[in-house]
Amino acid sequence: MKEIRYTPIGIIQTPFKTNAGMPIQPAGAKGARGTLKINRNFLEGLKDLEGFSHLILIYHFHLSTDFSLSVIPFLDDTPRGVFATRAPKRPNPIGLSVVKLNRIEEDTLYIENVDIIDGTPLLDIKPYVPAFDVFKNATVGWLTDKEKAVPQKKSDNRFK
Amino acid sequence: MKEIRYTPIGIIQTPFKTNAGMPIQPAGAKGARGTLKINRNFLEGLKDLEGFSHLILIYHFHLSTDFSLSVIPFLDDTPRGVFATRAPKRPNPIGLSVVKLNRIEEDTLYIENVDIIDGTPLLDIKPYVPAFDVFKNATVGWLTDKEKAVPQKKSDNRFK
Repeated sequence: MKEIRYTPIGIIQTPFKTNAGMPIQPAGAKGARGTLKINRNFLEGLKDLEGFSHLILIYHFHLSTDFSLSVIPFLDDTPRGVFATRAPKRPNPIGLSVVKLNRIEEDTLYIENVDIIDGTPLLDIKPYVPAFDVFKNATVGWLTDKEKAVPQKKSDNRFK
Repeated sequence: MKEIRYTPIGIIQTPFKTNAGMPIQPAGAKGARGTLKINRNFLEGLKDLEGFSHLILIYHFHLSTDFSLSVIPFLDDTPRGVFATRAPKRPNPIGLSVVKLNRIEEDTLYIENVDIIDGTPLLDIKPYVPAFDVFKNATVGWLTDKEKAVPQKKSDNRFK
């Protein structure tokens, strides 16, 4: 299939310099602050964003150099199909996190609850909209009862 | 910034052959069925996915040939910064939809509540996990009170 090419719209800056010890989801990253530095060519696209409390960030797992179709996720000790996990070693290493937006100053977005490694290329920002994005009663297969462990769980080097 | 290259993992097949008249979000696409045809090289990655009722699809808006930093969204008549909207004409035309998963048969995933045009290249599938993805009380800026109109609203040709 035809190759698709993207150019980052900016860079994600966070306190996490290595994979080991990182929170594994925004739910485990409460209070962790970061910034998005947006390429100045795209600043006009940020208009009206400040009214949203939460943003969906879509980014490139730049440290994932290869993929595995079967991975042992942080929350489990059984290999799972990679598409049934949020692990970074995916055929297209695209990451997704919902973070809190605190404020915007020109090319800088101040964000909170960041579970992303410093220097990650940002591909897109979308507003988080409960009417579009909330499905409270979704069932979660192998993650049932395991998702509660997320706030305590930290990353290690397994997906380097 | 450095260009990033992805290759689709499959194709999204839906009843929507043109932009005009399409639902604008899964919330407006209740009952619309589609299928994901996954490249056979990646089938092992689908293991364990069937336990999840909802999937996050990340895909390429292949009909978006250009972008605008300021767009008039379907739910408004005022121009908004593109990153404060879910419109397809984005610097990186990446789409995101949460759909219902009905069943999986080999390389075919049967999905429901699809707001995506037929033939769209699929980049990634992630499990939807309420513990990671639900932020009920998020505020939605310009979309306040407008999000309720989504189930009735249909797309037109403005983002062709």
